[in-house]
Amino acid sequence: MANGLPDPPRGLLTADAARSLVDSVDAFLFDCDGVIWKGDKLIEGVPEAMELLRKLGKKLVFVTNNSRKSRRQYSKKFKSLGLEVTEEEIFTSSFAAAMFLKLNHFPPEKKVYVVGEDGILEELKLAGFECLGGPEDGNKNIKLEADFYFEHDISVGAVVVGLDQYFNYYKMQYARICISENPGCLFIATNRDPTGHMTSAQEWPGAGTMVAAVSCSVQKEPIVVGKPSSFLMDFLLKSVTIPSTKFWIVMNSLLFQLLQLQSGNLKDVHGR
Amino acid sequence: MANGLPDPPRGLLTADAARSLVDSVDAFLFDCDGVIWKGDKLIEGVPEAMELLRKLGKKLVFVTNNSRKSRRQYSKKFKSLGLEVTEEEIFTSSFAAAMFLKLNHFPPEKKVYVVGEDGILEELKLAGFECLGGPEDGNKNIKLEADFYFEHDISVGAVVVGLDQYFNYYKMQYARICISENPGCLFIATNRDPTGHMTSAQEWPGAGTMVAAVSCSVQKEPIVVGKPSSFLMDFLLKSVTIPSTKFWIVMNSLLFQLLQLQSGNLKDVHGR
Repeated sequence: MANGLPDPPRGLLTADAARSLVDSVDAFLFDCDGVIWKGDKLIEGVPEAMELLRKLGKKLVFVTNNSRKSRRQYSKKFKSLGLEVTEEEIFTSSFAAAMFLKLNHFPPEKKVYVVGEDGILEELKLAGFECLGGPEDGNKNIKLEADFYFEHDISVGAVVVGLDQYFNYYKMQYARICISENPGCLFIATNRDPTGHMTSAQEWPGAGTMVAAVSCSVQKEPIVVGKPSSFLMDFLLKSVTIPSTKFWIVMNSLLFQLLQLQSGNLKDVHGR
Repeated sequence: MANGLPDPPRGLLTADAARSLVDSVDAFLFDCDGVIWKGDKLIEGVPEAMELLRKLGKKLVFVTNNSRKSRRQYSKKFKSLGLEVTEEEIFTSSFAAAMFLKLNHFPPEKKVYVVGEDGILEELKLAGFECLGGPEDGNKNIKLEADFYFEHDISVGAVVVGLDQYFNYYKMQYARICISENPGCLFIATNRDPTGHMTSAQEWPGAGTMVAAVSCSVQKEPIVVGKPSSFLMDFLLKSVTIPSTKFWIVMNSLLFQLLQLQSGNLKDVHGR
């Protein structure tokens, strides 16, 4: 017992340490999967902790490597879980892919082939790029017959690979042939996570598995735009104007347990 | 000009060197893709070279990493190209996978999950193993919804991954969950070729791409049974009883050009 509060569980900070830590930073960067939610289940303590941090005037930013959704779609997901989060507070690896192309002056007359889901297509289109692939190629089957010739669009100048539950051999060949045969074609990975909690009960193959397959076929490493690449972090810090020494990255749900535990105390401190 | 024959093209052996080389070995091990055929097209000079070597009493063995067909199916393919090759002369990576399990006393009550095509299933069944997966899982789509729970067979004791034109997210998760959650489950790759000439006109993603995806999701390296693993070579040499110093591996079509060029000369030498 300290300050009339119960001792924090082993491994958590003391009330004083938590207080000085929250005081010392201007912004909190939250991972989403496993921190805010698991699948579509909100993690306990999240709404209270977010409310408290907002009251304390902290800037909140939500970062996810999961490229299946756009910022707009994630904002809706937050809302469906009872949390008000604006698109501007959300940084997804799908958005990072679009911003990477934009900041690197990807020629507007070139197209982007997408191995991935709606989120990537939506962010690329919002950034003004013409896309091919994505979910609509999920139904395209290859029949490997002796004289079959696989056609591809020679104006594809970048291939973006992210998590894709409709991954198939057609997309693998499309991505391979663009990267190998279209001069200067970029190979961009949203992220390389080997697995992820795509549903609440289980882990599933992550974007890293699709990236590994394409990378193997072209014998090249991709440009990674999501975590832990420096691109996403640099872009994010510039966008939300946080000095890089003044934020704290929250990568597991311990913070919420901590804040919940200490919230009465923190409110007192900041309310004085 | 030497011995009345035209000079061989640059980089090829002289007639004398070719003669002593062919004399010095008892067996020729041929790669198939790119040596015997490209897609379903026979490579020029193959029938003549094979006929000559058989007349010279050489043992011929045909090795392929392409796991899509069984030995029986490859024997039919040779026949369709006008070449008589018995099943006993053929060593495929699909057969290697079955032999690896057999020689390692894989328990008959355990099942094998297959990411791959008919060839692997046929060889595993011939070796007495019960299989799941393969082409029939090619139509199974996953819809990643929040509460979806992916069921798997806990009696799967090995996952074999080979080239699979019907590769999908269902198979990726099935393979991942067996390897990660079934105690002692083996992870076997037929081969790791990044690409292959699956059709005559183009290269395509090879088995290595499916292996890379599964390997990434389980963060483990597979046991490789096809080329260039020592397993296939050791097994093959024992099976055909060739001392390892008395064979020559043919990995490109140059030999055939050479033999064709020198065949009159070689026949003379061996006919005396």
